[in-house]
Amino acid sequence: MAISPSSEPDIVRLGLLGFGNVGAAFVQLVVQQADTIESRTGIRLEVARVGVRNLSDSRQKQLVQGVMSTDVQALVADPDVDLIVEVMGGIDPARDLITYALKNGKPVVTANKTLLSQFGAELFAVSDSCGVDLLFEAAVAGGIPFVRALRESLRGEPIRRVMGIVNGTTNYILTKMTEDGAQYADALAEAQQLGFAETDPTADVEGHDAAAKAAIIASIAFGAHVVAADVYCEGISSITAADISIAHRLGYVVKLLAIAEQAAGSQDVAVRVHPAMVPITHPLASVRDSYNAVFIEGDAVGSLMFYGRGAGGMPTASAVLGDVIDAAVNLRKGTHADIGTFTQVSIKAIADISSQYLLGFDVADKPGVLHAITGVFARHGVSIRQAEQEGIGEDARLVFITHAARESDVQNCLREFGELDAVKKSLGFIRVIGE
Amino acid sequence: MAISPSSEPDIVRLGLLGFGNVGAAFVQLVVQQADTIESRTGIRLEVARVGVRNLSDSRQKQLVQGVMSTDVQALVADPDVDLIVEVMGGIDPARDLITYALKNGKPVVTANKTLLSQFGAELFAVSDSCGVDLLFEAAVAGGIPFVRALRESLRGEPIRRVMGIVNGTTNYILTKMTEDGAQYADALAEAQQLGFAETDPTADVEGHDAAAKAAIIASIAFGAHVVAADVYCEGISSITAADISIAHRLGYVVKLLAIAEQAAGSQDVAVRVHPAMVPITHPLASVRDSYNAVFIEGDAVGSLMFYGRGAGGMPTASAVLGDVIDAAVNLRKGTHADIGTFTQVSIKAIADISSQYLLGFDVADKPGVLHAITGVFARHGVSIRQAEQEGIGEDARLVFITHAARESDVQNCLREFGELDAVKKSLGFIRVIGE
Repeated sequence: MAISPSSEPDIVRLGLLGFGNVGAAFVQLVVQQADTIESRTGIRLEVARVGVRNLSDSRQKQLVQGVMSTDVQALVADPDVDLIVEVMGGIDPARDLITYALKNGKPVVTANKTLLSQFGAELFAVSDSCGVDLLFEAAVAGGIPFVRALRESLRGEPIRRVMGIVNGTTNYILTKMTEDGAQYADALAEAQQLGFAETDPTADVEGHDAAAKAAIIASIAFGAHVVAADVYCEGISSITAADISIAHRLGYVVKLLAIAEQAAGSQDVAVRVHPAMVPITHPLASVRDSYNAVFIEGDAVGSLMFYGRGAGGMPTASAVLGDVIDAAVNLRKGTHADIGTFTQVSIKAIADISSQYLLGFDVADKPGVLHAITGVFARHGVSIRQAEQEGIGEDARLVFITHAARESDVQNCLREFGELDAVKKSLGFIRVIGE
Repeated sequence: MAISPSSEPDIVRLGLLGFGNVGAAFVQLVVQQADTIESRTGIRLEVARVGVRNLSDSRQKQLVQGVMSTDVQALVADPDVDLIVEVMGGIDPARDLITYALKNGKPVVTANKTLLSQFGAELFAVSDSCGVDLLFEAAVAGGIPFVRALRESLRGEPIRRVMGIVNGTTNYILTKMTEDGAQYADALAEAQQLGFAETDPTADVEGHDAAAKAAIIASIAFGAHVVAADVYCEGISSITAADISIAHRLGYVVKLLAIAEQAAGSQDVAVRVHPAMVPITHPLASVRDSYNAVFIEGDAVGSLMFYGRGAGGMPTASAVLGDVIDAAVNLRKGTHADIGTFTQVSIKAIADISSQYLLGFDVADKPGVLHAITGVFARHGVSIRQAEQEGIGEDARLVFITHAARESDVQNCLREFGELDAVKKSLGFIRVIGE
């Protein structure tokens, strides 16, 4: 490995908070890449101290004694630590430790989506007022370096919409349902067996993990205060093999999307997580298994997509390391990344969003039924783009895809459909991403 | 639009060199986004002067008199210009103007792939020694912000291979050949009619444009001195509808790829442009029409892909604007982006690369032919992964896909096949990207 012409390496000492999968992978990666990083930047990274809540894990005992400590507060204060890497997760004590570090002039790199989706604005303000880096590439979509792209490369771009497949568990389940025709419960069980889903899968399958990431995406895409509680959220647990099959027949795949939108000239931000039908020719449709992707639509740049591993020790550690190098270089230059300002915005209610919708019904197969149903759509100003009817015994199954419509109008239609005698069963609706 | 709390805006005055599609789109975008950029960064961008080689274009005369000038040297020297945006293209006078600007402390943003693929190392050295930004996101893959990702986010990543679809013209032609079964000449004519290909399409279809981008990609991915002349280059003009059809039947699509590779622990860099068969499940296979994408493989991060518009006025202007904001913020902070060091490397000869290959032959359909052919493969240590034979009249067509093999061994096989009586016609070979 070529050594940079400058004489003595400039050592930046890292204090690591947390030593789970990501922490362990990070230490391994830093050791392996230290020479390369030094040759390219003149800076040598060293993991000086590692703080954990308890020392029970045998893996932790492998680390040289003296490096490992349970006094995380002392670690942050330690004058031998220049830069903090927070991969412990959760709100407490991460929130206080990061604040303390920033106030003491120590840059922080974090992978903590839960914390940033609730207290991001507070922490960004501390970072800004202290003039110290708080970087978080790994907090959304793991190894995919799109946070920096949004924060820096696209700062001048009029972004209209960001749509992300940001949860690997649900994408794995939906891929199995799509490609193998599996039922939800079976695909979930397989994901659990392979370690792609937790024993309690709620946070993933009900969309809460994606909602936290959606809040962070909306914040940086639109320079807006958005927290996890602002995000409308539906998961995938009610998606059936029949939904997937209807979608397939009509040229779509079902994906769980985190969507953040801001119309031109508007201060309102719409932010939500729900299953959606994505046209098979759309780049997001080709994102399979546990992969993640973030699709960005801007007025000038057009369509962009960033694709990669959204989780896993090594991919996440790679994103953390990118931030650490950046923060270390900035520290030595006496500068810091520009976090930008975050304005207060109104969050658009889900009733007020505009989308295309797929609606399905089982109806009595007799004269006048289609007329009654289309009458409801017409009265609420919902225009139909595509309709399909198939016989099922004495009944018929009707499937409609609407043009873009206001969600409240579609909800009103659904209410009225429930009152029609001819409608035996509503199959509900799924939002549809337009071409 | 919310105004940042700081009182007076800090104006950064831009000097634009060149006023073609990209330059005109850039001016439009700056005017439209100036308020947003100011609210997010505290900096107001103004296009102070525009330099062109001559004032013949009527579009140029629309610009306020006094802003436009043909004295480009004076523009760069003008004390009322803080930052240079070079979108004129070509080597001269861009090379001298950029050097002059950097030496006078003026950051430069350029979209000039031709210049950087030949004199990048020289210009990066000037930028580094002057401590002044030279940013070039738009020089490769237009609107896709992956140069910053490679330069910053992935600085610590052990990158093994980068594969890019970096030429929209050829991707459009290959997409038409794949999806409509078009012959090369017809697809090219359609591309020319739609403005996706030049009247003289040589630079695109023979791979020279992609080769310049490959050199820049290899330079930043591996911190290596690589110039366009180092890049082995084959275009798509000899790809036939039959090639596309064989690829399709075997589960592949044909793409023109720019590939840069560096094996772990090696200082050698392999860099080349050629058509390749890409498995249909590979993310690059779903990149259609004139879209571009760059696929990165790293030991830690796994697979990443960046997708978007590789050309066009507005997408390119968006990438230029991202760099301009970055350079303007850095200018006001008195800092600059870290360009990293570039080491001298050996460029691996095409004969020494390792790849999978598809080879096809028309042979006499008689006993012993397959035995003779497989004997040649065996003698050169080339192992077969897949073989297919179909009858064509009295002859047979044989198609083989090899396991990874050394290119020189495959070339030696081809030479011997030419000497076999049974081989009536060699259909040549195409390199194959493994799963």
